[in-house]
Amino acid sequence: MRKFINDPVNFVDEMLDGIYSAHYDQVTYVNNDKRCLVRTIKKNNKVGLATGGGSGHLPVFLGYVGEGMLDGCSIGGIFQSPSAKQMLEVTKAINMGAGVLYIYGNYGGDVLNFDMAAEMAGIEGIRVEQIVVADDVASAPKGNEEKRRGVAGMFFVFKIAGASANEFQPLDEVKRIALKAAKNIRTMGVALSACTIPEVGKPTFEIKENTMEIGMGIHGEPGISKGPLKKADDIVNEVMDKILGDFTFTKGDEVSILINGLGATPKEELYILYRKAIEILKNKGIKVYHPYIGEFATSMEMAGASITLFKLDNELKRLLDKPAATPFFVQI
Amino acid sequence: MRKFINDPVNFVDEMLDGIYSAHYDQVTYVNNDKRCLVRTIKKNNKVGLATGGGSGHLPVFLGYVGEGMLDGCSIGGIFQSPSAKQMLEVTKAINMGAGVLYIYGNYGGDVLNFDMAAEMAGIEGIRVEQIVVADDVASAPKGNEEKRRGVAGMFFVFKIAGASANEFQPLDEVKRIALKAAKNIRTMGVALSACTIPEVGKPTFEIKENTMEIGMGIHGEPGISKGPLKKADDIVNEVMDKILGDFTFTKGDEVSILINGLGATPKEELYILYRKAIEILKNKGIKVYHPYIGEFATSMEMAGASITLFKLDNELKRLLDKPAATPFFVQI
Repeated sequence: MRKFINDPVNFVDEMLDGIYSAHYDQVTYVNNDKRCLVRTIKKNNKVGLATGGGSGHLPVFLGYVGEGMLDGCSIGGIFQSPSAKQMLEVTKAINMGAGVLYIYGNYGGDVLNFDMAAEMAGIEGIRVEQIVVADDVASAPKGNEEKRRGVAGMFFVFKIAGASANEFQPLDEVKRIALKAAKNIRTMGVALSACTIPEVGKPTFEIKENTMEIGMGIHGEPGISKGPLKKADDIVNEVMDKILGDFTFTKGDEVSILINGLGATPKEELYILYRKAIEILKNKGIKVYHPYIGEFATSMEMAGASITLFKLDNELKRLLDKPAATPFFVQI
Repeated sequence: MRKFINDPVNFVDEMLDGIYSAHYDQVTYVNNDKRCLVRTIKKNNKVGLATGGGSGHLPVFLGYVGEGMLDGCSIGGIFQSPSAKQMLEVTKAINMGAGVLYIYGNYGGDVLNFDMAAEMAGIEGIRVEQIVVADDVASAPKGNEEKRRGVAGMFFVFKIAGASANEFQPLDEVKRIALKAAKNIRTMGVALSACTIPEVGKPTFEIKENTMEIGMGIHGEPGISKGPLKKADDIVNEVMDKILGDFTFTKGDEVSILINGLGATPKEELYILYRKAIEILKNKGIKVYHPYIGEFATSMEMAGASITLFKLDNELKRLLDKPAATPFFVQI
């Protein structure tokens, strides 16, 4: 293991202590439970936006709670879903009189618990709507989109919904635009190494040096091909082929692109991937409107990266450009 | 190797292609040389701020060129100094009529080349002053501060000088405040793994799993102790002891703290380190004014972290708080 940890049992709670100390002006917690994180600021009649999921993916999930983005987040252990009760507590705390929208990744435990929380919130008189993000094209074939996992593209749905809610749009409108964003996003990842869950103490799977796994999920879910490590340009070609073939990206389109590092991959390499990705887009007559390059959704110290394309139109571009300020993401 | 690369010879230039494509609105290059990076915006009579050094440390160096920070940067190959000629070209391009200040880390090649560039610029009628950052307490004992290497604390000197220059202070004043910042900074790092220079293709040194090297430099320079990996809290105790013992940090002081990831270490772990570091400061009656936690100066995919303390006073606090916006650092 190559990790800064104390007792592995305390990993998540010690991390949270650090986050609350560093960002006390932006986030706090409710119900005496540090895993129920909410913004310190409330805005009357704004739709409340909540997400949640397992820890180990910073900035996903809690890192996006802040101005112009989300209002609350429930967090589980490393790669574990938070409980419905925790989601409910966050929901109650961030309901500002205009209802609450959940935006989260398509994983069994999360779907089950968010569904239950939404139902319990309804009983308490809070209207809740849900968007399940399923952007990973490698996790199920075209035609089975509803079976796909949610990965880094989730960032774009947070950003669009956050900007819309910040304009005090009603819940139905925030849901409409967030759903449109979610449907316009496609992601695929490539893993070059595994990562270690602190309580396990060793990698839960293995990727040998000089090999790669295309399409691996952010919890190590199996990908679509394994093999010797290829050149960066060849990897980008393969990933972009798959993404571009999965959706109607056509000449004249504008897209945002996210080159996301999974944890251990240096920024230098992300820019090498970006360079090739935009060359491919340019050759197809697709214009890059606003690129994002960095660590937006990680798997702790996994080496690897994912590429996300987000097809834009005028209303999505306008909302994408709005400022945001969270502990882990600032856009001016 | 677990890296996204094409021909290793092209690693730096392909990375630069990606950076210029993604951030064309903020940075460009001069003299037909991509390794001579400058801001797209010029401000008449502002002191020009330049840095430079080897590649492989993003966001250091070029990532801090932008509003409220630096104006230009010359870049060498991975861990290699740029040439005096490249530094001179950047100097000429960013001289806006008020002279130029160089701020860079204390490494032999950089000192030699920046000195030569300053001399050549002088011959061309541009006044140049220099600040050599030497914040790494592990690299030479107290009393030999001038032999220390420059590491992550450099970020603070960029920030302070950048804010001062942005207020159109004259060169002597920008130099005075930048020097004060540089003298008030102490850093120490801990490495948990090595990193691989693309053209070498394998790690240039080794850190065995479940071991660590305290005080290792960002190019793998030997540290002050090697041994089994300790608990996070014990590591922070050891590092903070060394830093606090090296300078007059006393009860009632205010400091900024930077918990910097060296590349492969997850943000989760940086917050665990932060949690312990501020507990130690609190027990000593030292107040944390503005924490920074993330990747500010890396060694590609090295696992590890460094802790920097920056002793503040009112004028440093005021400048630290000023907004900044570069491709790799935004503060509002």
